[in-house]
Amino acid sequence: MKQDYNQNVEKLIEMVKGVRVCMFITNEQNTENLSGRPMSISKIDDDGAMWFFTKASSYKVDEIEESKKVSIAITNESSNNYLMIHGSAILVYDKSKMTALWSSILKAWFPLGLDDPDMTLIKVTPNEVNYWDSSSSKMVVLFNMLKAIVTGEVYEEGEHGKINL
Amino acid sequence: MKQDYNQNVEKLIEMVKGVRVCMFITNEQNTENLSGRPMSISKIDDDGAMWFFTKASSYKVDEIEESKKVSIAITNESSNNYLMIHGSAILVYDKSKMTALWSSILKAWFPLGLDDPDMTLIKVTPNEVNYWDSSSSKMVVLFNMLKAIVTGEVYEEGEHGKINL
Repeated sequence: MKQDYNQNVEKLIEMVKGVRVCMFITNEQNTENLSGRPMSISKIDDDGAMWFFTKASSYKVDEIEESKKVSIAITNESSNNYLMIHGSAILVYDKSKMTALWSSILKAWFPLGLDDPDMTLIKVTPNEVNYWDSSSSKMVVLFNMLKAIVTGEVYEEGEHGKINL
Repeated sequence: MKQDYNQNVEKLIEMVKGVRVCMFITNEQNTENLSGRPMSISKIDDDGAMWFFTKASSYKVDEIEESKKVSIAITNESSNNYLMIHGSAILVYDKSKMTALWSSILKAWFPLGLDDPDMTLIKVTPNEVNYWDSSSSKMVVLFNMLKAIVTGEVYEEGEHGKINL
């Protein structure tokens, strides 16, 4: 339903905003080990799509060309947000989009800025999102945890929700 | 070489200590999505093996019985430690080991404590560790990043090391 869908996307955006680094996982169907590397999330769109800058020559670009199936693991202890996002990745070589998403912090990886020829965007469209959101505030979490320890009640591990997009 | 091996394990332990939550990934060879869930690392041994408490009835236990191949993703922004650990998982139903690893914080998940019948340990022995360790101190990282932005020099993204154990 449209309303549920919108609420799910809003929840996803709320959790991902403020997360700087995720583990970006490719190569899922390979018999070798998964490929994972920390990546900075440049932006999450209003529809939940996530954008990343990367070097066009990087190995992950080859992997995405081979299989668009990727996962994004987020374990953000400070905000208590834990997400496992599965989605489809595409490579976007669009200078105007790069300009729109550019931030000066990216100069650390692309000293030539937007003129760097070895640059591409990755756009990930999520199709499944699992999240473990302990609470709306850390205080409540601590209280619940302590309460569980003191009283022997089972700690409700926040919500464990599955968002299908 | 023995000395290298020991140094690699020490480096691994140094990076993992202080990390509370990782994303624990199973089901790697499946055609469906990867299974990932946040888990608390109870202990890392001197040889690099990692221990986790879990409910024996949980789905991940079935998955480990099916395939021992697991990955552990760590993205710890506060300590600037980013690791992708691949290893073999085994289930350990050993009460004396559980007693040795028990911490009162676990009562949040196991209110019956060590008498909980629905409890098992997972031991993960790493065979490959990839890490991205920006620096020994956050100050230096910031300085390098800023330096790269100001001078146009490429930011050396810390070490990207692969530890084979």
